[in-house]
Amino acid sequence: MSSFSPSYSCHKLQESMLSSASSFKNYRGILNWCVVMLVLSNARLFLENLLRNGILVDPIQVVSLFLKDPYSWPAACLVIVSNVFILVALYTERKLAMGSISEKVGLLIYIFNLTIILCFPMVVVLKLLSITPVGGAFALGVYTILFLKLYSYKDVNWWCRERTQAKARNIYYFVFAPTLCYELNFPRSESIRMGFLLRRLFEMTYFISNVLSIVFQWMVPIIRSSMKPLQEMDYSRMTERLLRLAVPNHLIWLIFFYWFFHSSMNFVAELLRFGDREFYRDWWNSETITYFWQNWNIPVHKWCLRHFYKPLLRRGAGKLLSQSAVFFASAFFHEYLVSVPLRMFRLWAFMGMMAQLPLAWFVARFLRGNYGNAAVWLSLIIGQPITVLMYVHDYYVTHCQDDPTIAEAL
Amino acid sequence: MSSFSPSYSCHKLQESMLSSASSFKNYRGILNWCVVMLVLSNARLFLENLLRNGILVDPIQVVSLFLKDPYSWPAACLVIVSNVFILVALYTERKLAMGSISEKVGLLIYIFNLTIILCFPMVVVLKLLSITPVGGAFALGVYTILFLKLYSYKDVNWWCRERTQAKARNIYYFVFAPTLCYELNFPRSESIRMGFLLRRLFEMTYFISNVLSIVFQWMVPIIRSSMKPLQEMDYSRMTERLLRLAVPNHLIWLIFFYWFFHSSMNFVAELLRFGDREFYRDWWNSETITYFWQNWNIPVHKWCLRHFYKPLLRRGAGKLLSQSAVFFASAFFHEYLVSVPLRMFRLWAFMGMMAQLPLAWFVARFLRGNYGNAAVWLSLIIGQPITVLMYVHDYYVTHCQDDPTIAEAL
Repeated sequence: MSSFSPSYSCHKLQESMLSSASSFKNYRGILNWCVVMLVLSNARLFLENLLRNGILVDPIQVVSLFLKDPYSWPAACLVIVSNVFILVALYTERKLAMGSISEKVGLLIYIFNLTIILCFPMVVVLKLLSITPVGGAFALGVYTILFLKLYSYKDVNWWCRERTQAKARNIYYFVFAPTLCYELNFPRSESIRMGFLLRRLFEMTYFISNVLSIVFQWMVPIIRSSMKPLQEMDYSRMTERLLRLAVPNHLIWLIFFYWFFHSSMNFVAELLRFGDREFYRDWWNSETITYFWQNWNIPVHKWCLRHFYKPLLRRGAGKLLSQSAVFFASAFFHEYLVSVPLRMFRLWAFMGMMAQLPLAWFVARFLRGNYGNAAVWLSLIIGQPITVLMYVHDYYVTHCQDDPTIAEAL
Repeated sequence: MSSFSPSYSCHKLQESMLSSASSFKNYRGILNWCVVMLVLSNARLFLENLLRNGILVDPIQVVSLFLKDPYSWPAACLVIVSNVFILVALYTERKLAMGSISEKVGLLIYIFNLTIILCFPMVVVLKLLSITPVGGAFALGVYTILFLKLYSYKDVNWWCRERTQAKARNIYYFVFAPTLCYELNFPRSESIRMGFLLRRLFEMTYFISNVLSIVFQWMVPIIRSSMKPLQEMDYSRMTERLLRLAVPNHLIWLIFFYWFFHSSMNFVAELLRFGDREFYRDWWNSETITYFWQNWNIPVHKWCLRHFYKPLLRRGAGKLLSQSAVFFASAFFHEYLVSVPLRMFRLWAFMGMMAQLPLAWFVARFLRGNYGNAAVWLSLIIGQPITVLMYVHDYYVTHCQDDPTIAEAL
């Protein structure tokens, strides 16, 4: 509109934006589209429910996921007990700093403390039948996070003592801070932004209700109807049910990701004025499986790199061996967090994690660019529900089949 | 991994990528996610159909959308006749170039030719009852495109004669080229890339089958069940049906966009070695309604700017008046392309287009950034099915209600 004279030539040689030859990459709007579609679909679902059969989400059923008996809170008690292990770590460090115990004794106490942190909740969850699977998984998750945090605490304090640096004893700040890597002085943000805090709080409550409605309105009916084909090993019907389950399962995972890594972690960080908000990087653009695992969960990735991978390299282990060791540890914790609460040792989660290694090799070897990215998405969308369906099937066969009332409740 | 010494500080002050405060914009992966989800959902739907009731997409029903009588092809005949108007334009230009007719006579012939281009197919579609609505819309679409192209042809040749430039007579190349703006020498690509051509061809056939399955498996049942609430004006049920219709309708529009503006236009351009592939810009990031209308359909936008908006400005019209005139013309053509094939003059499409003006003002005035973008998406997702449902309802009431066989077929 700058010149008023009619222009003869109004075309030039250029590619379409969506062509892979174009370098255009800004698709922020597509993300907003996903949010709008999610909100709209939920609004419709809600309206349909009100019209047809009222709300299917039963508050008592939701509570009973966490509690069997309203007067005994075993998972909550387990979490409270965890303070003991924090205090043990703190006092060990104090003694080490004062020099009243030797480095060797300190290391022994740490090894003992960290082993108990992993074993004690496992034994409790396996033996105490009043703990529900969801409650058990929650308690084990808290203990696993604590294990990683105290391991980092030990390492960093040891490094500091080696260089005789000043020590800060901010252990409870570290326990609540959204990171697994200890350091003496965390970067802090200037103030608590109330608007930001309230938006994250709103997201947290909204997405929880979202997940609940997806589980009860969408997944439970599919899982219920998948049992018969699974038992009869009817393959075409099993594939159909698996693909049908894949969509809500994937949506829940995506919502969980946003809820945990964006809303909740930012909420806690804002409250504690914790400055480093890099809880994830752009894993949605992953063109290799490796890139995905390095970028979707930054706290764990940072911990693995700082306290596991690099120490292994320093001790002379090769790159491939160290990487495989990290995957192996990760597979162990995945299995630990699933098998123990369900009281079933099936190794599906472990195998799912270990299968990432050959998959990563295959994708890196044969697929590039957008095709690699599509392969990563496909492994997420299809791989997860296979594992979920395996556990659900085994849980159903061992727990529910002989008991018709539970089978009906499921 | 570059340094082997353990690092004490591993956090720094930074925002999360998904926060609006972060400047990160690369979400190309989300686009791939959409494609993977679309393909998977379709695979599941296909499998479900095979298992349940075979394929619902009836080839005869598809063909009958275009033809009532397999021995008369009125829409195809109309398209063939359109060559007459192209030749009239070509010979008028030849005479004008030779100086055998005056500019005034030439302009009169053009006005006559262009008026006939719009009126002749309209009369045929309205009078010839053997033309189906889909066939009629197709023929009218072809004539509208021809109208815009020949208008541009006239303008550019007139500008060239004013400056006594060399003339090229590439009218048939221009008629088939994916642009509405004529120029003497189009930019050309170097060669035809066979791989690119085949990928676009594959997309074209894949997405057509995609749209057909969405229409027959998903939309027709919803529309059928929406008729009763619409007739009884049952508002809560109408809202529920509208939201339910919004999702497949929006998906079809998105697929149509990709099919027409990316696959088909790039296919034709590749065949003709037409160099300018900018058929759309990043409308998915639109933060205002105006930005959307300026970027989703570049051929029409370019034409409007070059042959309508700028000439109006040159003649002294104000910006707001010129913009409104463009919207008015666009609303006229939308109505023309819908009302005539359906043989119903209801002005819903016209009003839908004109409603964009106050909506654009509202969004620009009150919403910014991602909120503006969400508002644009919402107007697309919700606005379209309202208009579609209006036409379907009126078509049903006027055509089908008294004829039980048609009502049943719908």
